[in-house]
Amino acid sequence: MRSIRELAPLGASAPSTPSGVESRSRRGRAVQRAIGRRLQAAIGAAPIGFVLPNGEELRPAARTPLGRIVIRDVRTLVGLVGPSRDLWFGDGYARGEIEVEGDFADVLEAIYRASRPQSVLERVGRRWRRLRRRRNTLAASRDNVHHHYDLGNEFYSLWLDREMVYTCAYFRHPDASLEDAQLAKMEHVARKLRLRSGETVVEAGCGWGSLALHLARTRGVRVRAFNISREQIAFARERARAEGVTGCVEFIEDDYRNVSGRCDAFVSVGMLEHVGPEHYADLGRVIDRTLAGEGRGLLHFIGRSQPREFSPWVERRIFPGAHPPTLREVSAVLEPADLAILDVENLRPHYARTLEHWLTRFETHHDEVARRFDERFVRTWRLYLAGSIAAFRTGSLQLFQVLFARDGASDVAWTREHLYAGTPSEEARAAN
Amino acid sequence: MRSIRELAPLGASAPSTPSGVESRSRRGRAVQRAIGRRLQAAIGAAPIGFVLPNGEELRPAARTPLGRIVIRDVRTLVGLVGPSRDLWFGDGYARGEIEVEGDFADVLEAIYRASRPQSVLERVGRRWRRLRRRRNTLAASRDNVHHHYDLGNEFYSLWLDREMVYTCAYFRHPDASLEDAQLAKMEHVARKLRLRSGETVVEAGCGWGSLALHLARTRGVRVRAFNISREQIAFARERARAEGVTGCVEFIEDDYRNVSGRCDAFVSVGMLEHVGPEHYADLGRVIDRTLAGEGRGLLHFIGRSQPREFSPWVERRIFPGAHPPTLREVSAVLEPADLAILDVENLRPHYARTLEHWLTRFETHHDEVARRFDERFVRTWRLYLAGSIAAFRTGSLQLFQVLFARDGASDVAWTREHLYAGTPSEEARAAN
Repeated sequence: MRSIRELAPLGASAPSTPSGVESRSRRGRAVQRAIGRRLQAAIGAAPIGFVLPNGEELRPAARTPLGRIVIRDVRTLVGLVGPSRDLWFGDGYARGEIEVEGDFADVLEAIYRASRPQSVLERVGRRWRRLRRRRNTLAASRDNVHHHYDLGNEFYSLWLDREMVYTCAYFRHPDASLEDAQLAKMEHVARKLRLRSGETVVEAGCGWGSLALHLARTRGVRVRAFNISREQIAFARERARAEGVTGCVEFIEDDYRNVSGRCDAFVSVGMLEHVGPEHYADLGRVIDRTLAGEGRGLLHFIGRSQPREFSPWVERRIFPGAHPPTLREVSAVLEPADLAILDVENLRPHYARTLEHWLTRFETHHDEVARRFDERFVRTWRLYLAGSIAAFRTGSLQLFQVLFARDGASDVAWTREHLYAGTPSEEARAAN
Repeated sequence: MRSIRELAPLGASAPSTPSGVESRSRRGRAVQRAIGRRLQAAIGAAPIGFVLPNGEELRPAARTPLGRIVIRDVRTLVGLVGPSRDLWFGDGYARGEIEVEGDFADVLEAIYRASRPQSVLERVGRRWRRLRRRRNTLAASRDNVHHHYDLGNEFYSLWLDREMVYTCAYFRHPDASLEDAQLAKMEHVARKLRLRSGETVVEAGCGWGSLALHLARTRGVRVRAFNISREQIAFARERARAEGVTGCVEFIEDDYRNVSGRCDAFVSVGMLEHVGPEHYADLGRVIDRTLAGEGRGLLHFIGRSQPREFSPWVERRIFPGAHPPTLREVSAVLEPADLAILDVENLRPHYARTLEHWLTRFETHHDEVARRFDERFVRTWRLYLAGSIAAFRTGSLQLFQVLFARDGASDVAWTREHLYAGTPSEEARAAN
């Protein structure tokens, strides 16, 4: 990846001394340096340098630094050592007041790995944010989803794979292409669910419809797919019409809480993050009333190994109302409905790889995105993608696929060998 | 399996009318019948008949009954409709006051499936037992383990596989032999842990040493294996001497809480059930201080999909101090230690199959066991094995293998394909 500086030329092309600083007192310099030292201490052994607003450079102890963080604004510099440092960093980067030199994801990864454990103040802040997180009422969910997913299908088509899958892919080999990996992910999910021709599937949160279409196409199942993103549903319906499968795939613009009818399989890929723990019991009730006695279900979601909200910046700028659950928190969906976990797979490294593909493609389309939106939007998304790479690489985020069934179901797979038999099915290849 | 009546000839060879009953009043008969009707109602649609102490038979609605439960004692009959029905059934069966005709496991399975949801009284009882369950202090753990595992190695060798593995096997095919399935289980665990030659392994709760020996033999690792059962440790040490591997496998008679040193892999198969939720944080601390940064760990245990103690009879007669955790409860081991779940596999049907093998072999050795202990012991163990089959078939119990690592570990398997590549390694076969 080219350095971020190359990619994002801003008015100020190099670390400069903001106007008037020259005339400021020696004390001003000392304060900046003191704050810079605190920043260095906060990232511990990470081989990252800093350039302060006054132009002074603080080099890391490491001989071969990974990169430099250039801070162009004094207020931002001060914000970076306060309790909202995450917001100051994110917004400062988006506004161009912070520049990152070096591979963005690598720099962020090094900082994540080296950062000191959170302070008491930060822990209190986290608790507070947890209490204060937007409740996902039907209306709030619609707003939250609209914020992120209704940015225009053309925007997403610039950098997603050709199937338009906006969730973690499954790379059978680390060097597989993104297109193959997204297809393999859908195959992996289909195999886990052991779908048989003629069965019915409910999909909660169907994105642009790729999985629903894949299942109908390759498994001969009837799918009812729900989503509250108007733009995604319109896109998915158009695909179903174009493929001539409207008879077996129905795209429904509605909330998961309004799912009705029965199904043999319940699948949800990338929606649980948007449900919120206060609604896990609701989701459990929906699955309980929908899923047949011998039915199978799968939840695929971004999670955590320790309970914690998304970072304040991600929650405010990227995914309002979202929450990455631990497996413990997910029990609130399954336990009351007498559902037993059959299989959990953690695909964390696959999401880092998926995001690397997305970021590379996103950067390729930098100019188009900047024209469609603006430079600040580009920088916000760049930070979101690179920061997510770092979060999955360092294990701050995890990716879980949880397969479940009624706790006494007799129709369960004897082993998991069938998931790994041969290459993806011929039908799946033929259809693509 | 032969019918239990054939297998366990008791003094009273057929449902008989206890002495004196003939002369009792019509009212006595009416009371017995009323209780019998309540029993029938309690097992709902299960095709099981009852024979009351007065000789009266209550047939099930089903045309082809699976079996009959013969109750020979009035006090036991009354106990079966009270809040401690589980204890009355277990102890009544052990004493020969209850006889079960038909395939024992099938009859119990039908009852489990058809039983009405628990009453308020039972739920209160469960809460109470949860509060009152024996705490597993170091001394209590030793007593609890001694109660079950120190019954004599020869007793267990009568009906376990030749490797003496007393935990759920892994049947690559449902018709695999028990010997192959226990070997396959050890292979499966070894593959999940991705052991490399020269690495160190800590095993907590090592039974008769089979897994520790298998890992040393097939993977070239050094194993320190802990167990507080004196008889099992003595047996395991003898095996290590006989195999000439005392240099790489050390069997230590000590509690998991006293594990020290460092390891590349931490494995525990069938011990977590005996730890008790109040000590999960202790176990987490042990793993945390023991496991290397890039280490892997595996917990294999009997669990539940909903939180609930073992039945009062199992807890009192079979496994004092034991508790089958849900995955939610197990988070108390992993979360505080920053350990992330990589893989969960539910092997429930495999434990039903394992227990079927054990029960068949146990019955084959009925006379030897009865000579060594007594008829009551035989009947207690028969009920424990058949009841466990029913519990795993119906999903009242589950069997989880949980693989974990530090949440940001970089040395994690890219996919799970390596678990299913080819047949068990040649070394493993050669060594057996």
